Amino acid sequence: MKEIRLGIAGLGTVGAGLARLLRQQQDLLRRRADATFPIVAVSARDRSKPRDAELGPARWHDDPVALAHDPAVDVVVELIGGAGGPALALVEAAIAAGKPVVTANKAMLAEHGTRLARLAEARGVPLHFEAAVAGGIPIVKALREGLAGNRIERVFGILNGTCNYILTQMQESGREFTAVLDEAQALGYAEADPSFDVDGIDAAHKLAILTALAFNCPTDFAAVHVEGIRHVSALDIQYARELGFRIKLLAIAKRTPEGIEQRVHPCMIDAEAPIAHVDGVFNAVVAEGDFVDRTMFSGRGAGAGPTASAVAADILDIAAGRNAPTFGMPADRLEKIAASPLQHHVGRYYIRLMVQDRPGVIADIAAVLRDEHISIESLLQRGRASAGEAVPVVLISHEAKEASVNRALAAIARTSAVMEPPRMIRIEQL
Amino acid sequence: MKEIRLGIAGLGTVGAGLARLLRQQQDLLRRRADATFPIVAVSARDRSKPRDAELGPARWHDDPVALAHDPAVDVVVELIGGAGGPALALVEAAIAAGKPVVTANKAMLAEHGTRLARLAEARGVPLHFEAAVAGGIPIVKALREGLAGNRIERVFGILNGTCNYILTQMQESGREFTAVLDEAQALGYAEADPSFDVDGIDAAHKLAILTALAFNCPTDFAAVHVEGIRHVSALDIQYARELGFRIKLLAIAKRTPEGIEQRVHPCMIDAEAPIAHVDGVFNAVVAEGDFVDRTMFSGRGAGAGPTASAVAADILDIAAGRNAPTFGMPADRLEKIAASPLQHHVGRYYIRLMVQDRPGVIADIAAVLRDEHISIESLLQRGRASAGEAVPVVLISHEAKEASVNRALAAIARTSAVMEPPRMIRIEQL
Repeated sequence: MKEIRLGIAGLGTVGAGLARLLRQQQDLLRRRADATFPIVAVSARDRSKPRDAELGPARWHDDPVALAHDPAVDVVVELIGGAGGPALALVEAAIAAGKPVVTANKAMLAEHGTRLARLAEARGVPLHFEAAVAGGIPIVKALREGLAGNRIERVFGILNGTCNYILTQMQESGREFTAVLDEAQALGYAEADPSFDVDGIDAAHKLAILTALAFNCPTDFAAVHVEGIRHVSALDIQYARELGFRIKLLAIAKRTPEGIEQRVHPCMIDAEAPIAHVDGVFNAVVAEGDFVDRTMFSGRGAGAGPTASAVAADILDIAAGRNAPTFGMPADRLEKIAASPLQHHVGRYYIRLMVQDRPGVIADIAAVLRDEHISIESLLQRGRASAGEAVPVVLISHEAKEASVNRALAAIARTSAVMEPPRMIRIEQL
Repeated sequence: MKEIRLGIAGLGTVGAGLARLLRQQQDLLRRRADATFPIVAVSARDRSKPRDAELGPARWHDDPVALAHDPAVDVVVELIGGAGGPALALVEAAIAAGKPVVTANKAMLAEHGTRLARLAEARGVPLHFEAAVAGGIPIVKALREGLAGNRIERVFGILNGTCNYILTQMQESGREFTAVLDEAQALGYAEADPSFDVDGIDAAHKLAILTALAFNCPTDFAAVHVEGIRHVSALDIQYARELGFRIKLLAIAKRTPEGIEQRVHPCMIDAEAPIAHVDGVFNAVVAEGDFVDRTMFSGRGAGAGPTASAVAADILDIAAGRNAPTFGMPADRLEKIAASPLQHHVGRYYIRLMVQDRPGVIADIAAVLRDEHISIESLLQRGRASAGEAVPVVLISHEAKEASVNRALAAIARTSAVMEPPRMIRIEQL
C-alpha cells in the first residue's frame, strides 16, 4: 500500500475540514486508492490558535516555504489563500522541489495561473485546483476531462454563494440589499468586509479559471468585466418577477466573433431556466459544448465539507497518477484569444427609470432610444405619483449593443424628468 | 505525437456521432491530448447499409470479435448494445487481447459489470463506460473520481429521456400517457417497441451501474425494483400539480440500515426541487455525499452528440493514461451489500381511489389505514358524481412502511365502494 504524505499549509475552515475528511474516510480512501494519506507537516499563521482538527503528530512549520522543502512531504496542499504572498511562494517552492500541488486558491490561479501551469509542466509536477471553482462541484474535472471532446461555446454560472444567498433572500422577503447583507453577516454567510463577494471579485477570479479551462487560453483576469450586486434593488427584483425573470449574479464567458467575452454582473434570466432555481448558497455552472449541448453542475460552492471533498479528489487523482494538463492543454499550447470588449456586447436590456409623472416623458425617452437604434420590447409604467414624486418606468429592449445602451442611458439621465440615475440589468439569453 | 488507433463496433447513431466528433474535433483533440485518433477498423451488422459518417479507409470486420484481434487496433469501442451476444463477446475478446475498452452498453454493464471489471483488472486493461449512464453528463467520472472523498448516502436521477419527455408532455398538455406516447413515437423520441424505456428497464440498467459506483458494491441488476410510467394518468399529474408536486420517473439507490435500496418508479417530488425542473429529454443525477452534501448534474441523456462526447472523454482518458478502477474500487474489494427489500421502504405515499360518492366511504377507508398504522397527512375529495359514477379521493400519507401500504391498498381494493384498483405513487423526500 502506498503512503502519500501530505503537507498542509493553512489551517482555517477548509484545512480543518480536510483533516476531518482524511480521518473520517481513512478506510474508504484506503480501499478506493490503495493508499494512506497521513498529514505529516502543517503550517499556519498562528501556532497557538486552537484548531478544530486533530492533526496528530504533524511537524509544524512557521514558514510555509519550509513545508515545501520538508523531505517528509510528498504532496503540498495550499489552503492559505491570497493571490500572492506566502501562498504563491509556497506553490512556487513546491513545484521547484518537484512536489505535486493541490490548491483551493482562486485568486492566485486567476492572476498567476498560466505561469504556474508552465512551471509545473516544466518540472513534470501536477498542479490541481478542483476546490478553486464552485467548491464541491467537480467542474474543473468536468471541463478538463469529462467534456474534453467538445469545443465549448459558453460557460457560465452562479459562482458566489454569498451573492446568491443575498439575492435569494431579497427575492423571498422583498427586503433591500443592505438589510439582507446585515443579516447574512450576522449569520456568518457574509464576511465582515463583504466587498470581495458582493462586488463580484470572487466570482471573477473563478470565472477567469473557468475561461482558461473551457477555451484553452491563458488566464486573463484583467479582461473580466466585474459588477457586483450592491445596486440591485428590491424594486428591480419585484419587476423581474412580474416580467417572468429572476435576478442572479452570473459569471459568463462566451465566444463571440471578436474573441472571448468575460463578465460578472447581475443578470435577468428566464424564471423557468434550471439555473434560476439554484438558490441560497448553492453554486451552479452551465457548460455548453458543440457535441454535448448544455450540461449543468450544481452543489455547494463553499464551506469546509464541500471544499475538503474537492481537495480530496485532487489528492486521490495524484495518488492514482491521473493527470491532466492544468488548463486542459499543455501551457505552451494555450492560445491567447482576444478579449471581446463589453461595449460590443449584444443582448437585451432591462432599464428602470424614476421619472416625473407628466405627459411627454415617455416620448422623450423613446426618442433617445430611437436615436440609438434601440427598439423597445415592452414598457411598464405603473401607478401615478403626486406632483414632484418619481414613478418607475421599466423598459425591456430588443437586442441592442452595449455601447448604444450606455449612450442612451447617459442621454436619458440628462433628461430633466429623470430623477435618479437609470438602472440597467442585462438580460442573459439561456 | 501519439497515435491511438480505434476500432469501432456498431455504426448506428452513436457510432456515426463519434466518427463525426473525431473528424470535426481533430485539431482540438490533437492539441488537448497530444495524440491523433484514427478509426482503423469498424464492424457492424450490415455492411451494405449507407452510413452517416465518412469512415475513411477503416478495415471492415463482419465479426466484431475479429475487430478485437485486429493488430492495427489499439482501443476497442463497443457501440453494439445488448447485454450479451456480440457486444459481450467483443468486450471479452478485447480484454483478453489486452486492449482498452470503451463502451456505452448499460445493459451489459448492469448484468456483467463486476465480472468484466475483474477480467479487465486481471489483464491490466482500462474499461471505460461514461456513455452508459446519462449520456453526455460526466457522472461516471464524477462519482468515481470527483466525489471520491465522500461516502455516498443516496444517488438518484432522471435516467430515461423518453419517460421524462412523456411525463413532461403529459404535464404540459394534460393528455393521457398513450396519446403522448403515440406522438413521441411519431417524433422519434420513443422506439416502436417502447417497453424498454417506458417500463423502466433502461433506467434500471443505468441505476445498477450508478449503485456500484456510488457504494462500491458489485452490480446487482436483479435487486432493482422496477416500475414504469404506463400507469401514470393525467388525473394523477393534475393532482400532483395541485398538491405542489411533480411526477418524475426516478431511479434511486439509497443506503438504509438494512443495506441498499435500488428502485425505479414514478415519484412525486416537491415542485420546487431543482430536479423537478429537469424537463423533456434531459437527464439529471443527484449524488449526496457526507462531505460534499448534495450535487446535481444535468444534461442530455441520449443522442448522437452527447453520447459521442462521453465516448470521446473515455478515449482521451485512455490516451492520457488516466485510469480509475471500474467501479471506483478494485473489483476484488467491492463489497456485497444486502439488498434492502422494498417492502421495508419507509416514505410518504400518494394514494388515489375512485369511489362511489356516498356517505361512509371515507370512514371505511380511514379505518383500513388506521388498522395498518398509516396516518393521513391530507385528503382531497373534489366534485360530486351522479349515482353509480366514481369520484376520485386522493390521500397523502405521513411516513409509512411499504408493506403496510400494500396491505392497506389490497384491503381498500376489496371495499365495495372502491370502483377501480387503487393507484399509489411514492413521494420521494429530496
